[in-house]
Amino acid sequence: MQTAAAVADFRTYPKICDLAQVRVLNDQIRVQWADGRVSPFHHQWLRDNCPCAECVYSVTREQVLEIVDVDEHLSAVDARIDQGLLSVQWSGGHRSQYDPGWLRAHAYDDESRAERWAAKPKPQLWDSRFQLPVFDYSAVMQDPHALLQWLLALRDCGLTQIRGVPTEPGALALVAKRISFIRESNFGVLFNVQSKADADSNAYTAFNLPLHSDLPTRELQPGLQFLHCLVNDADGGESIFVDGFAIACALRTEDPEAFLALCEIPVEFRNKDRHSDYRQLAPIIALDALGDIAEIRMANFLRGPFDTSEDQMPLLYRAYRRFIAMTREDRFRVVQRLNPGELWCFDNRRTLHARHAFDPASGARHFQGCYIDRDELLSRILVLQR
Amino acid sequence: MQTAAAVADFRTYPKICDLAQVRVLNDQIRVQWADGRVSPFHHQWLRDNCPCAECVYSVTREQVLEIVDVDEHLSAVDARIDQGLLSVQWSGGHRSQYDPGWLRAHAYDDESRAERWAAKPKPQLWDSRFQLPVFDYSAVMQDPHALLQWLLALRDCGLTQIRGVPTEPGALALVAKRISFIRESNFGVLFNVQSKADADSNAYTAFNLPLHSDLPTRELQPGLQFLHCLVNDADGGESIFVDGFAIACALRTEDPEAFLALCEIPVEFRNKDRHSDYRQLAPIIALDALGDIAEIRMANFLRGPFDTSEDQMPLLYRAYRRFIAMTREDRFRVVQRLNPGELWCFDNRRTLHARHAFDPASGARHFQGCYIDRDELLSRILVLQR
Repeated sequence: MQTAAAVADFRTYPKICDLAQVRVLNDQIRVQWADGRVSPFHHQWLRDNCPCAECVYSVTREQVLEIVDVDEHLSAVDARIDQGLLSVQWSGGHRSQYDPGWLRAHAYDDESRAERWAAKPKPQLWDSRFQLPVFDYSAVMQDPHALLQWLLALRDCGLTQIRGVPTEPGALALVAKRISFIRESNFGVLFNVQSKADADSNAYTAFNLPLHSDLPTRELQPGLQFLHCLVNDADGGESIFVDGFAIACALRTEDPEAFLALCEIPVEFRNKDRHSDYRQLAPIIALDALGDIAEIRMANFLRGPFDTSEDQMPLLYRAYRRFIAMTREDRFRVVQRLNPGELWCFDNRRTLHARHAFDPASGARHFQGCYIDRDELLSRILVLQR
Repeated sequence: MQTAAAVADFRTYPKICDLAQVRVLNDQIRVQWADGRVSPFHHQWLRDNCPCAECVYSVTREQVLEIVDVDEHLSAVDARIDQGLLSVQWSGGHRSQYDPGWLRAHAYDDESRAERWAAKPKPQLWDSRFQLPVFDYSAVMQDPHALLQWLLALRDCGLTQIRGVPTEPGALALVAKRISFIRESNFGVLFNVQSKADADSNAYTAFNLPLHSDLPTRELQPGLQFLHCLVNDADGGESIFVDGFAIACALRTEDPEAFLALCEIPVEFRNKDRHSDYRQLAPIIALDALGDIAEIRMANFLRGPFDTSEDQMPLLYRAYRRFIAMTREDRFRVVQRLNPGELWCFDNRRTLHARHAFDPASGARHFQGCYIDRDELLSRILVLQR
């Protein structure tokens, strides 16, 4: 049953449980469900979420009502279960109806909230024994199911490879656009990773590059990075990856004081050339509201001088050295040479990447790269899951 | 004097003060300056910031040295003032020299750090009496000084207007590109604000739009928004702006409990259509590390159902109603009709914008808009200030 209650969303909310009983209190309606759960719904909350065509514009599915235009002492004159729906008559005259599937999905009793948090996707940590998820170019380009599997692996593992990509410049954009538009940077929409005499980043030299995230110099580091191999005839230049979340997690256990220092002391990252000058102050490890590890920001070659108090400076150096040392430990590292037609796609805010030095005299080496933000990945997953 | 010490930056560091005396301690060198200030520099910090050509690649000005490759018990065998520079001989053989201008600019004694924080640009709050900073299109397009003045007003006031912009579609992109590339979204690189029958956002209707920020549904709201008037023959549709920082600041004083609720309880914003589904959970008011108001996230028509505990729900509604009510108070509002050839450019993370309903039957109305991120604004300012 698709009721008016679902109008403000493109998702559907299957009925988990029937409404059993409703009771009107002073500032809320308490709903008892057929499975015994009791959910409070404040009058303000219910009125705010009225899905009727007067409150939500049906074309855009966006709210037109502003709750501030409703009496703050609004009360329910009557509330009842009517043909399975919660039906409420408000003081002042408005009438609202709520679908039980939608209502259960948005209930905010402790149990319902805990259930929703538990259902959120969690990162699957990995180490050197990681079984790399590999996907086929044709499948990803043609089959929405294969596309979804790839995107879920990206979201949950943060490191994937696609094989069979045409070795033409720009081919990676076709893959990227299966997700969404590309995020531009000062290095372009697509960037060419080649050794250049006038390099504006160490990435464009033949040097060894230590494990890093790209663009830590921006407020929002790019969510996804693509690296596509067109030619790789040079000696050296192997790709190295570590799961930054796994390292941070190990550090949290092995040296909690160092872990906290990297969470709490902000560090400046800088990238500057003749035309730009980006600076960003942020901690190396970011936690989310629940204290879970949410992001790693790291690139030694883009780091500015540490700026913290005299007291904290030795601790910050100890923590930084420890983290860098851990990125070098074999237990965490996946090392693999990228061949023409292969494409790395990884979570740039979690999976640190590096490359060994290569010898430009020994043969050509040409990778192309681009970025997409995490918003786009999560949006595409939700659309594919509808 | 441009010494090797400045190699890792494009900025120059004028000499503020001579080095007067240096003293080697166990884990640091204590520098006394000619004005009496004493700055500690830990051995690890100094070695990490050695600017020599072996430690920093001179072409990219990026560090090649990784501090983890240096002994963690490194010590200074000798430190002296040599021709005005700090010259250090390290155990193990390396020698480093530091320019006194650079050293003073990065000193981390309490006084030097406090000086740097005090010198950071601060938002200039405004209300209905705001003297709108207006800039001329030709000047901004041709004169780097006028460009810089405009960008500083954008950074510090968060609301500006440019006049004399050609009324051709796409003309705003020329102005935007004086800063940098445009940030694309699902609404395109440029978006057309017109009343549409198949609107995928209330922005594309003729409705009244309440005060809001754009794309609160993304992890990083766009830093700058451009709105360019090509045609405005319709009745109504005036632009309204408020300084969200000024309102948050007033709320902090007038109702601290409501202010805290908006800082601490995250709210979900949603934007969904047939091809996308963006969801972002974040508080309405974000504070920076020092507790200063850093960002406002608000769009009633893009807000999802509140999801917080039963206890907190009444407080959240009270705080939300209060904030919205304040955005409607005359004391905060700037109301102005935009004429053809005029362009609003404002800080989308601070300055909330709205429009009155307009009557599409009374005449044509066509605005174009685009976004640029704050990183790009700050980078352009730093380059222009070199």
